Amino acid sequence: MNYKMIGLFFSRILTVEAVFLLPPLLVSVILGEGAAFWGFLVAFLDVALISGLFLLLCHGAPSTFSAKEGFVCVSVSWIVLSLLGALPFVISGVLPHYVDALFEIVSGFTTTGSSVFRDVEILPKSILLWRSISNWLGGMGVLVFLLAFTPSNGKSTGYTMHLLRAESPGPDVGKLVPRMRTTALILYGMYVILTVVNLIFLLCGGMGFIDALCTALSSAGTGGFGTRNDGMASFSPYIQIVTTVFILLFGINFSCYYLLLVGQVKSVFRDEELRLYLLLVFGSIALIAWNLYGTYDSFGETLRHAAFQVASIITTTGFASTDFNLWPSFSKAILLGLMVVGGCAGSTAGGLKCSRLLLLLKNLVRNIRQLVNPRKVQVIRNNGKPVSEKVLVNTNAYLAAYMLIIAVSFLLVSLDGFSIATNFSAVISCFNNIGPGLELVGPMSNFADYSILSKLVLIFDMITGRLEIFPILVLFSVGTWRNK
Amino acid sequence: MNYKMIGLFFSRILTVEAVFLLPPLLVSVILGEGAAFWGFLVAFLDVALISGLFLLLCHGAPSTFSAKEGFVCVSVSWIVLSLLGALPFVISGVLPHYVDALFEIVSGFTTTGSSVFRDVEILPKSILLWRSISNWLGGMGVLVFLLAFTPSNGKSTGYTMHLLRAESPGPDVGKLVPRMRTTALILYGMYVILTVVNLIFLLCGGMGFIDALCTALSSAGTGGFGTRNDGMASFSPYIQIVTTVFILLFGINFSCYYLLLVGQVKSVFRDEELRLYLLLVFGSIALIAWNLYGTYDSFGETLRHAAFQVASIITTTGFASTDFNLWPSFSKAILLGLMVVGGCAGSTAGGLKCSRLLLLLKNLVRNIRQLVNPRKVQVIRNNGKPVSEKVLVNTNAYLAAYMLIIAVSFLLVSLDGFSIATNFSAVISCFNNIGPGLELVGPMSNFADYSILSKLVLIFDMITGRLEIFPILVLFSVGTWRNK
Repeated sequence: MNYKMIGLFFSRILTVEAVFLLPPLLVSVILGEGAAFWGFLVAFLDVALISGLFLLLCHGAPSTFSAKEGFVCVSVSWIVLSLLGALPFVISGVLPHYVDALFEIVSGFTTTGSSVFRDVEILPKSILLWRSISNWLGGMGVLVFLLAFTPSNGKSTGYTMHLLRAESPGPDVGKLVPRMRTTALILYGMYVILTVVNLIFLLCGGMGFIDALCTALSSAGTGGFGTRNDGMASFSPYIQIVTTVFILLFGINFSCYYLLLVGQVKSVFRDEELRLYLLLVFGSIALIAWNLYGTYDSFGETLRHAAFQVASIITTTGFASTDFNLWPSFSKAILLGLMVVGGCAGSTAGGLKCSRLLLLLKNLVRNIRQLVNPRKVQVIRNNGKPVSEKVLVNTNAYLAAYMLIIAVSFLLVSLDGFSIATNFSAVISCFNNIGPGLELVGPMSNFADYSILSKLVLIFDMITGRLEIFPILVLFSVGTWRNK
Repeated sequence: MNYKMIGLFFSRILTVEAVFLLPPLLVSVILGEGAAFWGFLVAFLDVALISGLFLLLCHGAPSTFSAKEGFVCVSVSWIVLSLLGALPFVISGVLPHYVDALFEIVSGFTTTGSSVFRDVEILPKSILLWRSISNWLGGMGVLVFLLAFTPSNGKSTGYTMHLLRAESPGPDVGKLVPRMRTTALILYGMYVILTVVNLIFLLCGGMGFIDALCTALSSAGTGGFGTRNDGMASFSPYIQIVTTVFILLFGINFSCYYLLLVGQVKSVFRDEELRLYLLLVFGSIALIAWNLYGTYDSFGETLRHAAFQVASIITTTGFASTDFNLWPSFSKAILLGLMVVGGCAGSTAGGLKCSRLLLLLKNLVRNIRQLVNPRKVQVIRNNGKPVSEKVLVNTNAYLAAYMLIIAVSFLLVSLDGFSIATNFSAVISCFNNIGPGLELVGPMSNFADYSILSKLVLIFDMITGRLEIFPILVLFSVGTWRNK
């Protein structure tokens, strides 16, 4: 294990965190939020100090990097980021218990958006901003950010791919352009532009600047940290519609936007994952609107709420424009299904991902065909290109790990004694980085009532879900730490 | 497609059903149950007539048989058996609606044990016996019975393996002895002996003969059709303990008993699936007993109820000695987990099967190892023998199909508007052939309140679950019916 290299990495990652602590620090100064100011200042100094320490200790590390070290690096980075990112909450006193603060920031970085705050409207604006920034940064990925914006020393071509593969969502990571660093830059460029456009649309709707900024950042990361206790319910229909459209856009594979930019419109519309995603979105909206017939005053309102909730859940954002916990069972069942599926690979959305669902379905169909015609060799294709058996085996192992972790978490969380629907939806919600669940953890409630043990389990679920299981499993695997 | 051969098969299968309709017919005569007598008589005549018709039409069919035809044969046989097996319920008037009757008999043959009867204590004894016989016959398999007890024409070696593979539970079907027919005979021999021993133990406990016979038959098939409305709660602790032990025995792979008979004791105790099964059983009993501390009068009673429910649920029998719907969430979560796992392959239990869980876990561990050491080739072993990649791919596809069918069924059943826990546990319970679920379909309730659509969905789930998905999927696959 190349510990020095990992240490150097931490130093850089923490520099990024320190930089992102500056905007809320600035806001706390401008708005004169005393407690929050000290929280951010101390946190900033701590992060900067630790970053400097790592740099001193690990100076001049060899830059060779194996796949194993890539996994370890990514998972430990996320843990370190969260451990330090929780500091502002604790120091400012808004969350006196460290586990609560850790839950909140992990929920932020993993773009889950579950909160332990019983009342977010009394929080300092700078704290709200830090929550939304964590959503934004976690959405596209902290390491991707690092790759995009730190100068490369020219020797790093080998390890960047390992890192990007470990942090980026989806069964298979593609490069947009041959150089990894340029790919990361393009991704973040498009991300920033979409976020700014979203912000402008929200401001045009008359939203206050901090509210709009927080909403735009949380939407972009499909995180779902809001600024009101009732989610988005008290905002105007215009704001809700804008948010619906933008979170749907953030749930699409970003390479589609790149293809649009370079003029390959046809290949975007032929993309099988995008088609499945759109089918699921519009199909679910239609079914829920039908199921909700008569619940709201007009058909337009029904459609708006159906569209908002479907967009929010499939992209695993977790905003709510109405209390869907009160909807009929069929609509809730659809939302539970969408929670598991999630958005597209290569977007900021969580969940199993549409492309993985597609691969599982194709593998299943192949298996049935092979039972019918045992002698015929069947190849699985994705957008016309054959899929390697390795990706298939990986996808299947992913599903098994997914079910297993959910089952064990559900068991542990059940020790708190809440209802099955509460516990099951809480685990599904955290693992898929959605935010709200059903019943006690519904869209108008929060996770404050869970015990410390349950919160730790859910923290594990959020990180494992965001990093798509394997980096964390590699971290806990004996073979990783055995010297040969 | 060799339709004539399939027709001949139906003729034989229906002969078996006709033979098994005789005992309840006899009981209805002895006890003077008029309506039930006519029900069984008309059903017997119908089944015999249709069997004869198939024999006449399909006489002299060529006996070649492909894997595809094996799958079709098995799945259509089960459907035909159920369609006709429902007749006694309808004709005798105990279940006037045909879909209800079909639900009840499918629940019997698939050893689910879910019932639509609101009150089973007012039913004629012959009807109770027919329900339990369907559990017994469905447990070990109707086609296995056929293979064991009908004279072979010497040419049938090819297709028997296809059939046994399609009907027998588990990821990989082993032969006990080189000849398939002898294997089937040995299996049924051990099955009959264990059932009779169970019956004797129950009679020693002072149970009435019909009650004891029904309980023994339902236990053997791990079906769970009882003779009382409160399940096994009103029977003595002795009866409950006997039943606990026997259903646990019926959840073990029958090849273990064969190995014991031929003196290979060591290899039985080294069997990995058996070890996992016992670990799950004793681990769950311990955890639930701990969780229930203080709920019952004594530790002995707590342990008895914990053991009974764990045995009943992991073997997917579905008897209840107490209303576990009232247990704390953690205990209910354990039971939900056991529902999914199920018993051992090659037993009469349903569910995913312990051996499949083992394969999924091993595949997952291999995948993590391969991430850490990409260059090392890893082989998965089961009881020391390497597992073929085909079995692994199959097991993974099984899991995907499993999740998919459960998700779609859950969605459709949700249209009835019951709670999420009710609907989810109903689908899990039917698909894994357990019987009771939670809340509205809990151990002291029944499935009578579901709509026709939901009942049809659950009927599909029960058959698909019992035949382990693929035979039914092959039946609905386009490729099966395409001529080349």
